[in-house]
Amino acid sequence: MSANAGDPTSEHHSVSGPEQLTMPPLQLPPNLKFGPFSVTSQVFHISNTKLSYGLVNLKPLLPGHILICPVRCVPRLSQLTVAETTDLFNTVRIISRTLERVYSAGALNVAVQDGVDAGQSVPHVHVHVIPRKKGDYDHRGGGDQIYDAMDGEEGNVGRAFLEIQQQRRGRVNHRKEFSAGPDSDRKPRSEEEMQKEAFWLRSEVEKDYVEES
Amino acid sequence: MSANAGDPTSEHHSVSGPEQLTMPPLQLPPNLKFGPFSVTSQVFHISNTKLSYGLVNLKPLLPGHILICPVRCVPRLSQLTVAETTDLFNTVRIISRTLERVYSAGALNVAVQDGVDAGQSVPHVHVHVIPRKKGDYDHRGGGDQIYDAMDGEEGNVGRAFLEIQQQRRGRVNHRKEFSAGPDSDRKPRSEEEMQKEAFWLRSEVEKDYVEES
Repeated sequence: MSANAGDPTSEHHSVSGPEQLTMPPLQLPPNLKFGPFSVTSQVFHISNTKLSYGLVNLKPLLPGHILICPVRCVPRLSQLTVAETTDLFNTVRIISRTLERVYSAGALNVAVQDGVDAGQSVPHVHVHVIPRKKGDYDHRGGGDQIYDAMDGEEGNVGRAFLEIQQQRRGRVNHRKEFSAGPDSDRKPRSEEEMQKEAFWLRSEVEKDYVEES
Repeated sequence: MSANAGDPTSEHHSVSGPEQLTMPPLQLPPNLKFGPFSVTSQVFHISNTKLSYGLVNLKPLLPGHILICPVRCVPRLSQLTVAETTDLFNTVRIISRTLERVYSAGALNVAVQDGVDAGQSVPHVHVHVIPRKKGDYDHRGGGDQIYDAMDGEEGNVGRAFLEIQQQRRGRVNHRKEFSAGPDSDRKPRSEEEMQKEAFWLRSEVEKDYVEES
């Protein structure tokens, strides 16, 4: 990841501002999960209706690659209610503005792998939102390679979450299979790092977030 | 494309049923366009609110690859109103059920290239919906290659529409650049073929379509 004024991983940016000391915890629904996984520390947004939430990624394909999910765990878009669909994609729209601003992006990829045969790895609807800028993926063979990465091993959201779950349980420090292959240069992030990004993103979203009628 | 019971391009399926003789034309908003392009003959659905419409593709990457768009022409998701976003993605959800049924699919890719740097080729928001089944893209190198195709030359929606516009004006029969390269096996479809598919899809959607509160 290149240094970026709005990127909390940048050396030039500190997230230890006054907000971090004073912001109350997000009021999340009890037992909020992403598929079978506990994700509380990664959640940076819960919609006003409490029907949708946003979480930062264990292994973002590009800086700012986040997921927006319905709170209710169902695998397919067709299983969502009108209210859930409405809230999910209006949340995507609202969050996308903030993402684009804070990651200095000029575009976004928005994608749902709706079912296993479309590449879905966690049976819980999730909308990938990936900030894009010109030439941002040239080092990996060009802009369209982002989708290969999303559908391939390195974008396997399910495996990434399984890994951090195992880390939490102290079973492994770093699974061997993650230290080889095309993903070897992208170490999974620590919980602390994700929590920092989640906190920072939350404060940035709250600057933009105006309830719309 | 493999023959499919629900595929109008299949030799075993006729779209010249009684519906085709009796269904009135869709009540489309005046001057409905997709970016700069006239697409009336390709439109198979207009939502009850008249805020969103669906159109069949000139060059579907897989059978049933369609686009859902807001009627109002804006390039970015962030420019849509709450009502437009709500209608757009609830239309995606409703149409996706029909697509999955009639193309005997088990999953769907849903994707928005939101801005030029994310691969957008027509400056009018459009949601790609692509029915997927196990192994359907193995002949092209595996399931995730669908995204390469979407972002590459063969998925260039803008160029495809430009081509048919030129065909309509009688300027060219078949542009040279389309007869070479990875897309050479996918000839652009005739207007008659698209119109047939649009009509057939419309009748199938209307079987499923129940206004939801």
